Amino acid sequence: MKEHKILDAARKRFAYYGFSKVTMDEIAADVGMGKASLYYYFPTKEDLFKSVIADEQDQFITKLKRIQHTEGTVTEKIQQYVRERLNHFKTFVNLAKLSFQAMLQLKPLFTDLHKNFSAREHELLSAIISDGINRGELKQGQPEKTATLILHVLHGLRLRKYSLIKDLHFDDALHEQLRDEMLQVLDMLLDGICVD
Amino acid sequence: MKEHKILDAARKRFAYYGFSKVTMDEIAADVGMGKASLYYYFPTKEDLFKSVIADEQDQFITKLKRIQHTEGTVTEKIQQYVRERLNHFKTFVNLAKLSFQAMLQLKPLFTDLHKNFSAREHELLSAIISDGINRGELKQGQPEKTATLILHVLHGLRLRKYSLIKDLHFDDALHEQLRDEMLQVLDMLLDGICVD
Repeated sequence: MKEHKILDAARKRFAYYGFSKVTMDEIAADVGMGKASLYYYFPTKEDLFKSVIADEQDQFITKLKRIQHTEGTVTEKIQQYVRERLNHFKTFVNLAKLSFQAMLQLKPLFTDLHKNFSAREHELLSAIISDGINRGELKQGQPEKTATLILHVLHGLRLRKYSLIKDLHFDDALHEQLRDEMLQVLDMLLDGICVD
Repeated sequence: MKEHKILDAARKRFAYYGFSKVTMDEIAADVGMGKASLYYYFPTKEDLFKSVIADEQDQFITKLKRIQHTEGTVTEKIQQYVRERLNHFKTFVNLAKLSFQAMLQLKPLFTDLHKNFSAREHELLSAIISDGINRGELKQGQPEKTATLILHVLHGLRLRKYSLIKDLHFDDALHEQLRDEMLQVLDMLLDGICVD
């Protein structure tokens, strides 16, 4: 399908050069298509970028559903979720290759996309937690509230790390630091630090 | 003392109008002083602002020391810390009255100030946690590592909330939302959500 080919080419270009350095001409050339035809599918570069992101989000949600239905403890599932969520964030950062400030400016473009994604993510994490309560692995509580708090904590840690980097380079070392930190915080959230 | 009078006047002006809207002329007039004399004490408005912030930080650290040495459980002390830390953040936001983006741009000015403050804050929170371990209230662990993680989580939650507001108005309702969220997250960090 034409649209898929365009999205694949665009994803590769964005991942290599970053959002702002890619032109519609280059993407049209990659898929051997006139610029006018490309604009028929995607009226602006922003639209194209949004579709690439939406695609990545769908893939992440699919992974999350798979995690939900695997064997294993709820702790393991939430840990897996944290890892996959960070990979998804890394993909997003790589596709955009924008500074934290530029990203904040670009953000309004993604408001709807982001809302929808966040809602699905919240729903799935709530389901995993709810399942954990039913199986007696987690304490009684409000799964949706707990999911919200965990998501906010993780979001905050990502934002924090991202706001600290000066250049646009969110490299593997930083990514690993952030992953370790998230998993350590997750341990605390799951087991607490107080003596029982 | 002259310097104290200037700092008091500046604090009031900044808190009312925000950093960018205050002029050195106005502050000089407030303390009945020539502009040249004011510049003798504080060569730039940034210097003056930095001193006001340093003052607020000293007051916060003093409060924190008091919390460390009060009666009460470690849980109560950490909760009190979270409340006071958020008040300190609120003061800072009010003095600057800058958007999240403008604040990020202004940030390099405060690098040294911030490093020093963070180090003292970390030291005090580590001491409180260490004390909790010695008293048998907290599980064995690395107090400094735990303090770092708690500080990063709280910082992330502040950043997250702050980055979500569009205008410069970090009002009391937002402040309360953030406080409730932080205290709920703290509960999770202290007690965990897993069945023991």
